[in-house]
Amino acid sequence: MTIFQKILDGEIPCHRVYEDDHVLAFLDVSPLSRGHVLVIPKEARATLGELSDQSAAAIGRVLPRLCRAICAATGATDYNVLQNNGSAAHQAVMHVHFHIIPRMNEQGLGINWSAGSLEKDAAELAASITTATTA
Amino acid sequence: MTIFQKILDGEIPCHRVYEDDHVLAFLDVSPLSRGHVLVIPKEARATLGELSDQSAAAIGRVLPRLCRAICAATGATDYNVLQNNGSAAHQAVMHVHFHIIPRMNEQGLGINWSAGSLEKDAAELAASITTATTA
Repeated sequence: MTIFQKILDGEIPCHRVYEDDHVLAFLDVSPLSRGHVLVIPKEARATLGELSDQSAAAIGRVLPRLCRAICAATGATDYNVLQNNGSAAHQAVMHVHFHIIPRMNEQGLGINWSAGSLEKDAAELAASITTATTA
Repeated sequence: MTIFQKILDGEIPCHRVYEDDHVLAFLDVSPLSRGHVLVIPKEARATLGELSDQSAAAIGRVLPRLCRAICAATGATDYNVLQNNGSAAHQAVMHVHFHIIPRMNEQGLGINWSAGSLEKDAAELAASITTATTA
C-alpha cells in the first residue's frame, strides 16, 4: 500500500487543500517551493495511462482552480504542473499524482531541456500514435 | 497570435495524433524524446489557471488514452507529463500546452529536484489555499 493510499484512508494526516468525490489535493511534505501541492485521484492506479477517463477528467477539471488558489495564497505567478510515470521518469510513489509547483525566487522545479528534431518518420510515428488512441 | 493558434487555425501544419471538440494533440517539432507530444485546448488561454473547467476536464480525460497510445507506438514504459506556466517556469508559447514526454535510453525530460521541508505555517498555508479554491 502506498503512502498516498494511507493518506486517502485517513491513516496518515495531510494538509488538505481540496477534496471532491474523485480527487484529493494536499501540501507536499517535501516541497520544491512554498505552495507545492499534490493532486491525486482517489482511484488507486500507479500511472496516468492506467487511470480511468472519469478520474482523469476530474483531476483536469480542478487543476485550473487549484493553480489559481495556490497563486493567490503564495503570490506566485509562474508555476509548473508535473506528473511522473515510472521510476526512470522520477516517480517515487506508485499512485498517480500531479505536482503543482510554484516558481518563485529561483525556487521550484529545475528543468533540463535538451531538445532534438523530428525524425524523418514523423508522419508514420504520428499515424501509429493516432491508431493506438483508438485501440 | 501564438504558433499554436496558427496550428489550430490550419495556417501551420502539424503531425496530429488526436483531436476532439476541445482538444488537439500533435508531435512536438523539437522533441526531447521520440513520441514527445503536445496536448492543447482549442480554447485560447495562456496559462492553465485561466483555462475553463470544461477545457481542462477535456484535456484531463484524454491524457490517459494519449499516454497509452504513445507508449504503444514507441515502446516506452516511463514518461513525464509537464505543463509550464509563465516564462520563469519555462513556458515558451503562451497558449496552454501539456507535454507528454517518453523517458527512454536516457532521453526525455531532465529534472532537478531540490526538495525542502514544510514550513511551520503549513496549516495556515493549506487553509489559505483551501479558502482560495472557493473564491
